[in-house]
Amino acid sequence: MRGYTHDKDRYLKRMRRIEGQVRGIARMIEEDEYCIDVLTQVSAVTKALQAVSLGLLDEHLQHCVAEALADGGEDAEAKVKEASEAIARLVRS
Amino acid sequence: MRGYTHDKDRYLKRMRRIEGQVRGIARMIEEDEYCIDVLTQVSAVTKALQAVSLGLLDEHLQHCVAEALADGGEDAEAKVKEASEAIARLVRS
Amino acid sequence: MRGYTHDKDRYLKRMRRIEGQVRGIARMIEEDEYCIDVLTQVSAVTKALQAVSLGLLDEHLQHCVAEALADGGEDAEAKVKEASEAIARLVRS
Amino acid sequence: MRGYTHDKDRYLKRMRRIEGQVRGIARMIEEDEYCIDVLTQVSAVTKALQAVSLGLLDEHLQHCVAEALADGGEDAEAKVKEASEAIARLVRS
Repeated sequence: MRGYTHDKDRYLKRMRRIEGQVRGIARMIEEDEYCIDVLTQVSAVTKALQAVSLGLLDEHLQHCVAEALADGGEDAEAKVKEASEAIARLVRS
Repeated sequence: MRGYTHDKDRYLKRMRRIEGQVRGIARMIEEDEYCIDVLTQVSAVTKALQAVSLGLLDEHLQHCVAEALADGGEDAEAKVKEASEAIARLVRS
Repeated sequence: MRGYTHDKDRYLKRMRRIEGQVRGIARMIEEDEYCIDVLTQVSAVTKALQAVSLGLLDEHLQHCVAEALADGGEDAEAKVKEASEAIARLVRS
Repeated sequence: MRGYTHDKDRYLKRMRRIEGQVRGIARMIEEDEYCIDVLTQVSAVTKALQAVSLGLLDEHLQHCVAEALADGGEDAEAKVKEASEAIARLVRS
């Protein structure tokens, strides 16, 4: 079980939509569509992925990190450090 | 013809790889993989999309905007404004 | 006491350096320095601020959120939700 | 003369405001204010800097790059490449 498991169907649905958007961008490039229009679609996919990341991160904090912290001990500190590093990657991507 | 047309195959190859990565993320979620590992993959896809955007934008400046500016006239100014707006969306996504 | 209090001097030192960099950018604009050079300095300040944010967030998770979660109860959930919203603002800024 | 020179006063005013915000963040840290409130202010400064960057970039494209492209020749290509690199730094900061 993961923090997001209870909401898995919704995440899978979002990922399928993102996959379709990515295929759509390839089709635009295949058909020589205007650069700016392609860029607009890429920005839309980036935003959708960002929303998925923030959702997964929230679930992770609320469940995995929260449980580790409630139990206390060394694992808790490692879990917080790991979450901070994931947040840094997300901020810098 | 678009600024990126001469490089279309390379962009299509990159988009196919991104599509595969997106499907891979869905599979990770399907198989309840650890949240942080899923997040790491999402950051990788976001970076790959960012590189595609920067490439398309560079091509657009070098060809579409450059040609409009070389020709001069009102279209040139509109093209620069349009490019600036695309850059703003990219920075804010 | 805050999560960052034990490290306050270091944060204050970083903020003073950022303040100096911001004044430096104003001076560059005052002296009509080349746009790209000004932009490079602005990107440097943005990166420095990002590092401050990630540091503060890590301290907040390790102390404020961790303590709330260790105590359990409604406050814990509110603290995690608040942290997630701060992360979203950071990712989107 | 730079692309932004005609608008220098407005940029200087914005930089002075940003400088004040940065000092304000240092004061919040000095006074042990709540981490999330400090983070909110840092995000506000990052957004203000982003807006300055996008403004400077737009001016640079409209004037410096446009003039180089209207004149044609090798300098034009170098100017576009330089602008693309600045955009990449901005997107990745």
